[in-house]
Amino acid sequence: MRVAVLYSGGKDSNYALYWALKKGFEVKYLVSMVSESEESYMYHVPNIHLTELQAKAVGIPLVKGFTSGEKEKEVEDMKAVLEGLKIDGVVAGALASEYQKQRVDRVAKELGIESFAPAWHRDPVDYMREIISIFDVVIVGTAAYGLDQSWLGRRIDEKAFEELIKLNEKYKVHVAGEGGEFETFVRDAPFFRARIVFDEVEKKWDECSYSGVLEVKGAHLEPKG
Amino acid sequence: MRVAVLYSGGKDSNYALYWALKKGFEVKYLVSMVSESEESYMYHVPNIHLTELQAKAVGIPLVKGFTSGEKEKEVEDMKAVLEGLKIDGVVAGALASEYQKQRVDRVAKELGIESFAPAWHRDPVDYMREIISIFDVVIVGTAAYGLDQSWLGRRIDEKAFEELIKLNEKYKVHVAGEGGEFETFVRDAPFFRARIVFDEVEKKWDECSYSGVLEVKGAHLEPKG
Repeated sequence: MRVAVLYSGGKDSNYALYWALKKGFEVKYLVSMVSESEESYMYHVPNIHLTELQAKAVGIPLVKGFTSGEKEKEVEDMKAVLEGLKIDGVVAGALASEYQKQRVDRVAKELGIESFAPAWHRDPVDYMREIISIFDVVIVGTAAYGLDQSWLGRRIDEKAFEELIKLNEKYKVHVAGEGGEFETFVRDAPFFRARIVFDEVEKKWDECSYSGVLEVKGAHLEPKG
Repeated sequence: MRVAVLYSGGKDSNYALYWALKKGFEVKYLVSMVSESEESYMYHVPNIHLTELQAKAVGIPLVKGFTSGEKEKEVEDMKAVLEGLKIDGVVAGALASEYQKQRVDRVAKELGIESFAPAWHRDPVDYMREIISIFDVVIVGTAAYGLDQSWLGRRIDEKAFEELIKLNEKYKVHVAGEGGEFETFVRDAPFFRARIVFDEVEKKWDECSYSGVLEVKGAHLEPKG
């Protein structure tokens, strides 16, 4: 089974990739759809380029598609990108978003290929425990009451996860960040041939919206021991 | 004819793309092979990301393949990247490099697709006159006696080209930069839907090797009138 994995660099897309590789699928491409709205930050949000570093660490070519970012156009643009690939299936990191899953399923159906969403409807706590046991995953964006600046750049380890669970009980923060509460970035995984090291980061915090991002201004690959 | 265009962002790959589009080919992907040696500069040479901005301006998905940069491995890596694409041909910007043309031809033959090199063995002066008449092209790297710092970031217009011809007579600088005398970047072309504007650049000059690069630290797309 030759597949493309929809890839944004966070925990869910890395899980999708992990699953596909473990299953023995031939992962031909990582596919990132970059929307205009994001893209306009091209040189203001350096994180957008980190997917390249990840693709290099993994050793799989990255396909970057460009889309205006309007909802339905985005689906068509993704379809056009996948259409030109010799693949039998597409793997997505969808966890609970019906919208995301439905549109990938629809595109796959139209292209006559299979659609996989290995994390779909998994129990969030179980899922996160697996994630943190296999990935070096850090929080690079926050947008939820209870997640203050100190969470930006924090690695999600056992201790951080216990705190997330407590925040969930107190403020209803989704423990897997499904409602956009936090964004993650995977620096290392079993299938990375080299790990990503951040050289220079900057926390950007907006007190009004109580949200922030970790801008990674410099990063490099380091061989694994 | 569905094709991929080998794309680095300079005049030759943009010419290859221009030619393919004019010919009515369906250009499915731009393909950039990024070598390890270049890649280690990932966050030190921001220019490497400008191909993304160009791909966005053109509206064609970009495939980035990663290679160790060793000569023969690079060919195999390129083959692996092209192999997964539903294409009938590959278009390269090769101008005079036998090595470059031969390896693309060989890969195409092995994949059972066609290979095109529209600029191959064209007269350098004629070729450059066409280039500067259709592209907004600037010099982003220099490595030749006679090309001082003032050439970094300079647009190649008629006047600059006349000077290049004089330098060619005096110092044997190849007028199309074929010997690595200069590297170019295309900011606008007839097939760009938006033009690239440099926001912040820095000249890096090395007096010892008498060479330099223009680092583009910020850039954005601007709609065309």
